[in-house]
Amino acid sequence: MSDPNYPLLFSPLDLGPVRVPNRICVTAMVTRLSGEDGQVNDAILERYRRFAEGGSGMIVVEASAIHGSRSGPLLRVSDDAFVPGLTQLAETMHAAGPGKVYLQIIHFLKVARSGWRQKIDSLSTEEIEALPDLFAAAAQRAERAGFDGVELHMAHAYTMSSLLSRRNKRGDAYGGTLENRMRLPGMVVDRVLCAVGKDFGVGMRFDAEECIKHGYTVQDSKEFAVRFAELGIHYISLSAGGKFEDAIHRLGHPLYPYTGYSGDRCMPGNQYPDLANMAMVEPIRRELRARGHDTPVLGAGKVPGPELAEQVLQQECCDLVGCARSLLADPYWPAKTQQGHADTAIRCIYCNVCKSLDENFHEVRCYLWPHRSQQAPRPGEQQPAAITWPADSQLQALPHKGGLRLSWPAATGPVLGYDLFRAEVGHDFQRLDSTQKLRRFDAEVIAGRNYYYYVQPYDDSGLRGPPTPPLEVALPAFTP
Amino acid sequence: MSDPNYPLLFSPLDLGPVRVPNRICVTAMVTRLSGEDGQVNDAILERYRRFAEGGSGMIVVEASAIHGSRSGPLLRVSDDAFVPGLTQLAETMHAAGPGKVYLQIIHFLKVARSGWRQKIDSLSTEEIEALPDLFAAAAQRAERAGFDGVELHMAHAYTMSSLLSRRNKRGDAYGGTLENRMRLPGMVVDRVLCAVGKDFGVGMRFDAEECIKHGYTVQDSKEFAVRFAELGIHYISLSAGGKFEDAIHRLGHPLYPYTGYSGDRCMPGNQYPDLANMAMVEPIRRELRARGHDTPVLGAGKVPGPELAEQVLQQECCDLVGCARSLLADPYWPAKTQQGHADTAIRCIYCNVCKSLDENFHEVRCYLWPHRSQQAPRPGEQQPAAITWPADSQLQALPHKGGLRLSWPAATGPVLGYDLFRAEVGHDFQRLDSTQKLRRFDAEVIAGRNYYYYVQPYDDSGLRGPPTPPLEVALPAFTP
Repeated sequence: MSDPNYPLLFSPLDLGPVRVPNRICVTAMVTRLSGEDGQVNDAILERYRRFAEGGSGMIVVEASAIHGSRSGPLLRVSDDAFVPGLTQLAETMHAAGPGKVYLQIIHFLKVARSGWRQKIDSLSTEEIEALPDLFAAAAQRAERAGFDGVELHMAHAYTMSSLLSRRNKRGDAYGGTLENRMRLPGMVVDRVLCAVGKDFGVGMRFDAEECIKHGYTVQDSKEFAVRFAELGIHYISLSAGGKFEDAIHRLGHPLYPYTGYSGDRCMPGNQYPDLANMAMVEPIRRELRARGHDTPVLGAGKVPGPELAEQVLQQECCDLVGCARSLLADPYWPAKTQQGHADTAIRCIYCNVCKSLDENFHEVRCYLWPHRSQQAPRPGEQQPAAITWPADSQLQALPHKGGLRLSWPAATGPVLGYDLFRAEVGHDFQRLDSTQKLRRFDAEVIAGRNYYYYVQPYDDSGLRGPPTPPLEVALPAFTP
Repeated sequence: MSDPNYPLLFSPLDLGPVRVPNRICVTAMVTRLSGEDGQVNDAILERYRRFAEGGSGMIVVEASAIHGSRSGPLLRVSDDAFVPGLTQLAETMHAAGPGKVYLQIIHFLKVARSGWRQKIDSLSTEEIEALPDLFAAAAQRAERAGFDGVELHMAHAYTMSSLLSRRNKRGDAYGGTLENRMRLPGMVVDRVLCAVGKDFGVGMRFDAEECIKHGYTVQDSKEFAVRFAELGIHYISLSAGGKFEDAIHRLGHPLYPYTGYSGDRCMPGNQYPDLANMAMVEPIRRELRARGHDTPVLGAGKVPGPELAEQVLQQECCDLVGCARSLLADPYWPAKTQQGHADTAIRCIYCNVCKSLDENFHEVRCYLWPHRSQQAPRPGEQQPAAITWPADSQLQALPHKGGLRLSWPAATGPVLGYDLFRAEVGHDFQRLDSTQKLRRFDAEVIAGRNYYYYVQPYDDSGLRGPPTPPLEVALPAFTP
């Protein structure tokens, strides 16, 4: 089964009782495809079928509410009435691919369009103490629905993360000290593990760092990891940021916890280096190992594809690699990689259009998909498009204000848009943008270096036309 | 010269033409000891004499203004009238110790108590283009004053950092693109290098990451480092954060750029792990080496003492280690370490009282120094104090809300306060706090572990009395 080019990435791993066939995990991503009713529908089935077909070893279905609180469109597991739909979802995914299927389960508090939000301080001790049973009941429903496991959502801006937060100053047994901040989350882990069968997986996700002023850092999250490992959690998935505390309120919109700096860190965009949060993950895993726990750790945050995923596994940063946006862009990159066709994968450009869609309660799609498509294209759909370039077509580059103005002629045929690729000497081409225009300004070039560009058109179905020949641009050196 | 226990830390290093005797650098710290006149005075001389006596290989004197703009108390180098005072400062430091002496030079914009601040957008192209000459003139004054070098301040919230910032959207040649953001800083480096003698050191400091929303990350700062290395800078010192953009305005106070999350990252407090920013430093140094530059790189950010300083050098994270707060707490720790007395060093507890003093324009002192002392105690002053404990004195610990209530009796004699130390099994004792009270709540203990505590009194001169015997506390395990 192991791939000589990716010896760790395509090797199996035991997450407690659940063996995943490889180390690639689709981390939970809101789709906004379900209605306000919280039920699984055809669009949801189709979205997750493709993730399963794509060959990821583990797929965590989007955060599903364990309680009946009103919200925008999201999946729910708060009542037995949701079990049939979830059963269909789990069956669909199991039939479509080898990956193990987890349901992320979440408790959240209220937000209003005024910018007001409910805080954990307003919950009574009784309300706090009711949470473990809510999580346990939801986990049991997921088990009945045929999922392989659940993931307890304790990251970002939601109830459990607010309890873990260093800003949790509750005066009862559930805040104010490190131990008290971990208390209820520990009770949830314990209750869920007791409530489900021995073969059912129970993992959790929390922030490695909150990335807010006075927030917690890896200093605390090392302790969280050790505590949850002691309680027997099957895996620990680490995220970062995504907090309400630094969110920016837009008038008339509910506060969205990914609008501040902590939101940038949660879903690092194109100004961030690849593996932007991996340096937070490694010390947490190291602490676990030093204290005798072999609990698998998942690292995430701008993992663009198989090469760097294999690298962080080799470096023992983590045991599993979580990808959200890169697998949204192309759910099939694991299978394509295993079949030796990694080069045909659609590479995420981290434009975060998906994040904007979520923020505005629109269906979450990828900017790189064929226009108006609700789902990622299947690999079989990617044949050459009937597009050609006019004779003497040339990509042009003009220096302007320290950047480059790139332009190209219109291609002929059913053109929907153009992918622009750039490489530096000694590096692979990377997609810089996808655009329907005939020009793009590159503000990120360095004087004195040589760059190569090419443009490739695509049609409405994602089929690709021929690329232009590469254009070499030699920029004059900087003179002070 | 080399110390077998610290083979790299106490080895010399060439920063261009300047050889520093060891790898420990006192990074620039505002003292607020100078008056509004910007002149060197006795308190300044005394502060820096002790840094020099302490044996650091390099001492960067606090940011000194290159222009006449009004400000709170800070040193100035904006006119020849400041040269005599600076000459006395450089002479004093050279006479007191082996370290090389740099002056950090800074340009800043206006801030008002209303919260208003001048931004780089308001500067004309001519005003921007006047900066290189201002920096060059200041560097020449520092050279005339006998400094070994200057450090160009391009970090945090100030003019040069705002030009480098990813938020710099100027429409002229000095913003909007990566190349334009680097343009003026490059001109400054070039002009300063041309203006001073070949034996004079010219280094710079900039943020490895801005740590603000839409700020730059190591992705850009790798390019900055390469550019400045190409221009011949002698060393690169890396800081992080400290920006106006996320600062919190207090009514009636000028905006202070260390009050937001980016301020936390700039001076990471006790909720941060040691070496909190070192993961940003390593990739920048690696990029320099990959592009053929051997420019020394300084890493900083909660480096508490010699052990971890040696470690990051061994790991090739950086070539020099910058310490501010840990050397403020005890300027003598380098010498004490070299003499085999590292255990007598006063260890910074990262309480950030020094930061609060700066914020409020008070003289910057260390909370761990003898009460009312303007300067750190010299090692010779640290003899046993005439303090004893009453018979049967016992340190007590009572579990409370997941933490521990520690208390102890009053010691007898000229007691000013008490240091509280804590250790976990297998770890060294660390100072948890210094307090004038007879109790301390420890909110950061973990159920199921054993802790050791002791208390040591000190007198008004920093002399220490006998410690209590260690108290062992075994906390019951967590039960969900």
